[in-house]
Amino acid sequence: MESGLSEQRWKFRANEFYTSSSTISVRGILGRLWGSLSEDNPRPVIPLGHGDPSVFPCFCTSPVAEGAIFESVSSGGFNCYSYPVGILPARRYYLSKDLPYALSPDDVFLTVGCIQAIEVIISVLARPSANILLPRPGFFHYETCASSSNLEMRHFDLLPERGWEVDLMGVEKLADENTVAMVIVNPGNPCGNVYSYDHLKKVAEMAKKLGIMVISDEVYAHLVFGNTPFTPMGVFGSIAPVLTLGSISKRWIVPGWRLGWLVTTDPNGILTKHGVVESIKGFLSTSPDPATFIQGAVPQILEKTPDDFFSRTIDVLKQTADICYEMIKDIPCITCPYKPEGSMFVMVKLNLSMLDGVKDDVDFCMKLSKEESVIVLPGVVVGMKNWLRITFTIEPSLLRDGLERIKAFYERHAKAP
Amino acid sequence: MESGLSEQRWKFRANEFYTSSSTISVRGILGRLWGSLSEDNPRPVIPLGHGDPSVFPCFCTSPVAEGAIFESVSSGGFNCYSYPVGILPARRYYLSKDLPYALSPDDVFLTVGCIQAIEVIISVLARPSANILLPRPGFFHYETCASSSNLEMRHFDLLPERGWEVDLMGVEKLADENTVAMVIVNPGNPCGNVYSYDHLKKVAEMAKKLGIMVISDEVYAHLVFGNTPFTPMGVFGSIAPVLTLGSISKRWIVPGWRLGWLVTTDPNGILTKHGVVESIKGFLSTSPDPATFIQGAVPQILEKTPDDFFSRTIDVLKQTADICYEMIKDIPCITCPYKPEGSMFVMVKLNLSMLDGVKDDVDFCMKLSKEESVIVLPGVVVGMKNWLRITFTIEPSLLRDGLERIKAFYERHAKAP
Repeated sequence: MESGLSEQRWKFRANEFYTSSSTISVRGILGRLWGSLSEDNPRPVIPLGHGDPSVFPCFCTSPVAEGAIFESVSSGGFNCYSYPVGILPARRYYLSKDLPYALSPDDVFLTVGCIQAIEVIISVLARPSANILLPRPGFFHYETCASSSNLEMRHFDLLPERGWEVDLMGVEKLADENTVAMVIVNPGNPCGNVYSYDHLKKVAEMAKKLGIMVISDEVYAHLVFGNTPFTPMGVFGSIAPVLTLGSISKRWIVPGWRLGWLVTTDPNGILTKHGVVESIKGFLSTSPDPATFIQGAVPQILEKTPDDFFSRTIDVLKQTADICYEMIKDIPCITCPYKPEGSMFVMVKLNLSMLDGVKDDVDFCMKLSKEESVIVLPGVVVGMKNWLRITFTIEPSLLRDGLERIKAFYERHAKAP
Repeated sequence: MESGLSEQRWKFRANEFYTSSSTISVRGILGRLWGSLSEDNPRPVIPLGHGDPSVFPCFCTSPVAEGAIFESVSSGGFNCYSYPVGILPARRYYLSKDLPYALSPDDVFLTVGCIQAIEVIISVLARPSANILLPRPGFFHYETCASSSNLEMRHFDLLPERGWEVDLMGVEKLADENTVAMVIVNPGNPCGNVYSYDHLKKVAEMAKKLGIMVISDEVYAHLVFGNTPFTPMGVFGSIAPVLTLGSISKRWIVPGWRLGWLVTTDPNGILTKHGVVESIKGFLSTSPDPATFIQGAVPQILEKTPDDFFSRTIDVLKQTADICYEMIKDIPCITCPYKPEGSMFVMVKLNLSMLDGVKDDVDFCMKLSKEESVIVLPGVVVGMKNWLRITFTIEPSLLRDGLERIKAFYERHAKAP
């Protein structure tokens, strides 16, 4: 029998869902944009496409956080496996001081960054015919998880003319008997908005009316620098059950440490009664944990970081958000409907009619990358075709340079009047 | 309209898959066993149920590994997000020195422990009607992932009378047109066996005959202390494509650090040709990463750990494996068909006919936990009802105490002749 390699038949094929999903993910599209950089461009690349401040000198983590890691590793007490929900000392220290009721460690579940917290809750809610309401624009990972879990997604609008508030009437119209939850992101990614106490209360009341829970993505919690103070959604947990998602990634400028959490703020115990808490524990009992020694460092990180570390970050963010907003006014083909008050991003509308030979937002970003070595995220990735998401968590001088290059790009591609 | 809380109707329900799967997972059953410990027992609990040596003084990680973490954190260069496949320096240092061909960094994918590596490969292979061949007994996480991905599982036997070798005739009978892969665990969990070069070559040849890939779980790589040296399955990558899974958890005694990998050892590029590599990248582009600074420490950990650290661990394992094997001979109701030569576990057969009032392996373990404060894993969790998995990675004095308590338990429950 001949069986040379050329005649060998291999029967496996890959699941194409993952191949295709990667091409439209934030990481996938950023990979394409970085790949399209011109090789003979001597200028530095200016990354306005994703929010990782940790690589810039003006943003760096607190020595308290680093010291907490050293201590945790040196103790030798955290090389062991974790518990599925996270180790107790780390769950004990979650800051419940902003809430009108105390949280218990049983309300806190530690995750491998907020990315895993999203996976947990989407997986736990996925049931045949159930649907979830997601914001448009929003954070891509909800869509990825819902697609792979076969949880139907319905999108409600955020209203740029109203500071990116939730279109509550739209939410009510979208919901039906099979709707289980709605997601908000506050402070907003990708819009840089911060929801008022009153608006969040209306969100909770709408959720109660519809009989659904609120999933509040607060990865950018406390990173606010405008007129609206940050209000945790959990404040309204007695109106409707709230699942709050967070992490140390952004506030402590350590996105690579991969320590996030999922917190139930549900003083009436509705999530427990409906099996949600048990299902979360079940999911976590068979999925990866955050590194135990990073969990071991959490109490010190959360309790000991001095206020002036946070205020320094906020000061820089305020400054770069201002630069971004003002300089965008000088670039005719993009308009910003709302001055950012929080998070690390702003959404701007692309006016294609002012440009020659630019097909859409992806085309704009690919050409901008190739010609100007500036990376910006096309809005289609966050649900808004022909918008752009720009991050301002970057060294101020680089940010100015980047926006000037976008202006130069516009001038070179401007349609003749 | 009345809408008091008592009449409020909430529409969400939890996905019961996760609730039920947790009750039969290793972590779920260990949780039940720990929960059944008698509260008024003054003796220390002896944990022979899971493999976490890091909590015992006779096993502890190398100062080189701790130092590598300190350096990585101090540099400030690894607080950033990772790349989906892991950062390049960490992928470059994967030890390919045992293979007959060089690996490239493109062959290496870093994961959140080996747990996530299993998730990746099961998800990537899951397609309608596809099936995968798993060993019985085996490592539970393959089953969990396959269930949640709807990948059909078929189990082949490991043969205790032949040193837990794969029943290759059984494999051939199980496979059909829709079989895509077979899994082996070497050194073996739960059996403590180590496969010979010749047996692994036969596995590769069977895989080639069937047109399937081999997934080789080598989490316990190099932890061998018997007559059979460790052979990486990748040695046979030119016969059939091999996906090797590994981690620093066991060899460096840091299971809580959550740094694993998935490596393609496929010199003929068959996995790339069949879309498997692209699909792995796609999955990783939307899933959690291991902490970047732990990745940053990997080159030092892999290259700089002195040989005497490994030989010390092996010496202790050899000693505890011997204690375990010899003392089991003195406990009439359990028999060990194979002296462990590797990993951290041994499987023993429970002879229920010698016991009064013990229903099955779970009942044995629950009663043992309650009466003797000794935790042992019931075999049903790893696919072998009425067997037990015992770990010997524990302080020698505790191991002796634990096995004596099992003997005392037997004597108390022995059936009258």
